[in-house]
Amino acid sequence: MYAYSRLYNFTVGIFTKIGCNAKDAALAAEVLLSADIRGVDSHGVARLSGYVRLWEAGRINANPQIKIVHETPSTAVVDGDAGLGLVVAPFAMQVAIEKAKVAGTGWVAVRNSNHYGIAGYHAMMALQHDMIGMSMTNASALVAPTFSVEKMLGTNPIAVAIPAQEQPPFVADFATTTAANGKLEILQRKQASAPIGWVQDKAGHASSNANELKQGGSLLPLGSDREHGSHKGYALGSIVDIFSAVLSGASYGPWAPPFPAYVPMPENMPGQGLGHFFGAMRVDAFRPADEFKSHMDNWITRFRKAKPSEGYEKVLIPGDPEREMEAARRKDGIPVVAAVTEDLQQLAQKFGIEL
Amino acid sequence: MYAYSRLYNFTVGIFTKIGCNAKDAALAAEVLLSADIRGVDSHGVARLSGYVRLWEAGRINANPQIKIVHETPSTAVVDGDAGLGLVVAPFAMQVAIEKAKVAGTGWVAVRNSNHYGIAGYHAMMALQHDMIGMSMTNASALVAPTFSVEKMLGTNPIAVAIPAQEQPPFVADFATTTAANGKLEILQRKQASAPIGWVQDKAGHASSNANELKQGGSLLPLGSDREHGSHKGYALGSIVDIFSAVLSGASYGPWAPPFPAYVPMPENMPGQGLGHFFGAMRVDAFRPADEFKSHMDNWITRFRKAKPSEGYEKVLIPGDPEREMEAARRKDGIPVVAAVTEDLQQLAQKFGIEL
Repeated sequence: MYAYSRLYNFTVGIFTKIGCNAKDAALAAEVLLSADIRGVDSHGVARLSGYVRLWEAGRINANPQIKIVHETPSTAVVDGDAGLGLVVAPFAMQVAIEKAKVAGTGWVAVRNSNHYGIAGYHAMMALQHDMIGMSMTNASALVAPTFSVEKMLGTNPIAVAIPAQEQPPFVADFATTTAANGKLEILQRKQASAPIGWVQDKAGHASSNANELKQGGSLLPLGSDREHGSHKGYALGSIVDIFSAVLSGASYGPWAPPFPAYVPMPENMPGQGLGHFFGAMRVDAFRPADEFKSHMDNWITRFRKAKPSEGYEKVLIPGDPEREMEAARRKDGIPVVAAVTEDLQQLAQKFGIEL
Repeated sequence: MYAYSRLYNFTVGIFTKIGCNAKDAALAAEVLLSADIRGVDSHGVARLSGYVRLWEAGRINANPQIKIVHETPSTAVVDGDAGLGLVVAPFAMQVAIEKAKVAGTGWVAVRNSNHYGIAGYHAMMALQHDMIGMSMTNASALVAPTFSVEKMLGTNPIAVAIPAQEQPPFVADFATTTAANGKLEILQRKQASAPIGWVQDKAGHASSNANELKQGGSLLPLGSDREHGSHKGYALGSIVDIFSAVLSGASYGPWAPPFPAYVPMPENMPGQGLGHFFGAMRVDAFRPADEFKSHMDNWITRFRKAKPSEGYEKVLIPGDPEREMEAARRKDGIPVVAAVTEDLQQLAQKFGIEL
C-alpha cells in the first residue's frame, strides 16, 4: 500500500527529471494518479515507465508549446507539440470550458498529443463549472472491426460527466471495446483465461486465450460479435477515432502512434501524433442550472431504486464504483502490484529519486 | 412490393387526414419512409397506425406551434408542442445547423415531442452542409440497467453522420441495446427464439424467449451482461436519456411516454413528452472542409481494405448496408409484410384513401 502523496511526490519527481517544468510535472502527476485513485490501475503509475521510455525515444516533448491553431466561437483545434497528453489534454479541456462560458458549448479537437491518462479526469473538469464534460481519445490499434481480423482501432474510450445537485455526479468512462486491455493484462498476470467475447484469434475465431494479442489476435469491439451488436461498438470506436484524429489532423486508425516505445512508428502517418476530442456544455445553455441539477438528482435517485436482479443488491450509477474506490484509497492507500513496484524502483534508481 | 411513391402518397394522405398541413404531412411521410427505404422496417410504415392511434388518444397534436424556448449562440431548447416527432425533429435539427453556421457548432435539446422515426434521417440532414450531424432520442422504457430487472430506459438510439468527399458518408445509427426491439418482433412473427444476450426474464436470468418482454422481462443494454460490458451500454442509454430529456425538460427514464396508445401515460411525469438531442458541427470549424473530407475518404478506403475474418468477404463502413438497401428498394420497391399491409388497408378504409 502506498499513500497517495508518496506516489504523487515520486511521480512529480520523475516528470521533473525528464524536463517538465514544475507546473506541468504537478499536473501530469495529478492526471496520471487520478487513474490509480479511482481504481483504473492499468492507466496510472503502471504506465509511468512507459511515458519515460517514449521520452527517451524522442517521442514526447517535455517542454511543449501547446497552442490553439484554429478556432470559431464554439470550437478550437489544439496542437499539443508532441507534449505529454497528461498536460495537453487539460489545456484543451480548459479551452472547451472557456468557449462554453461564452458560446454555450465548447468543442476542442487535439492533434500531436500522446496518451492522456483516464478519459474521465478531463470530462470531470467541467463539473465545477456546472457544465457537462466530454472526453475521448484515439489510441494504438488493438481492435478489429466486425468481420475483420486486422487491428484498426484503439480501445478508444469515451467519458461523459454530468453534474447533479445533492447527488454525486454521473460519470461514465469506458473503452469502446467489450473489455479494456488492462483487464486482459490482469488475466495474463494470473495466467487465467478470458471470457469468450473479449478477444479473437488471428483467423477471427472467438478465443479465451488472454495472450491472444501476442499471437496475432485482436480485441473485440463492445458487443463482441455481430449477433450481439459488435458493429455498434465498432461504430463507436470509429466515431472516437474520427472526432479525435480526423477532425484535428492527428494520425488515425491503424496509423495511431503506439504506446510501447519499442514498437516502430507506423509508416506514412496521415497526421500528427495521437488525437483527442473534448466537449463542454453549460447546462444553463439549455435550462436553469438548479432546475437541471435537481432533475439529475431525481434521475439518479430513481435509477438507484430500480429493482435489482436476483442475487444483486443494488443498481449502480455510472461513476459509483470509481468514487467508492477513491474514498477507500484516499484513506487506506493505493495497492501497487509487485511488477509495478519493481518498475517504479528501477525508475527511482535511474533518476536518483527515492520511492 | 410497393413502389416508394405509392407508400409515400398513401402516408401523406393519412397524415393530411389527421390534420397535418400539406408541408408537415409531406415531411412526416418522408421521414417515416426513410426507415423503410433504408431497411429499418420496424420504424417505417409499420408504425403509421401507431401514430394514428396516438393522435386518436389526443397524445399527438397535428398542428403544433413548434418553438425555440431558450437559446445561446451554440444551443437551443425547442418545445415540440406535442407534435409528431417526424416534424418536430427536422425543425430542431435545422436550428442546430443554423447555429453551427454562425458559432461553429449547434446543439438543440427538444422536449414535448413524440417518436421521431429513425435517428439517422436527422443526423444526415447535416451532410449537405459539410457538417457532422448527431441525433438521439429517448423512448418508452423497455431496457433494464445492469444488475436490474426493471425497465428504466428506451432503446435510446444514437446516430452520427460524417461527410466524405468521393466516398459515401459514414452514417452510424444504432440502438444502445444489444438488439433493437424491431429485431425481436421479427423473431416473434417467425416464432423463433432469440440469441442469448438480447433479453432477460423477470428475475434477471438470460433468456432466449423472444416473447419475454410480454412476461415481465426486459431488453438488455449493448454488451448483454456485466462480463461483456453491459454497464457501457447502460451508460450510453443513460447519456441519451439525460441529453434528450433532462437537458430539455422532457420526461425521462421510466417516465418516458409509451408509444402504444393503449398503455396509460406514466404518473407524475417529471417533464413534457419525449425528448431528443441534436448536434451539428461544421467540419471547417476544425480544419478546411476539403482536407477533412479527403482524410475521411482515406479513412473509409483503409477500413474497407482491412483484412476480413475467415468466411467473410469484406469489412463494412457504418451506413453501407442501409445505403445498399436504399439503392435496391428505390429500384425494386419496398417489401411490406402481410401484417403491415393489413394494418395499412385498415387505415385506408378508415380514412377513405386508396392504398
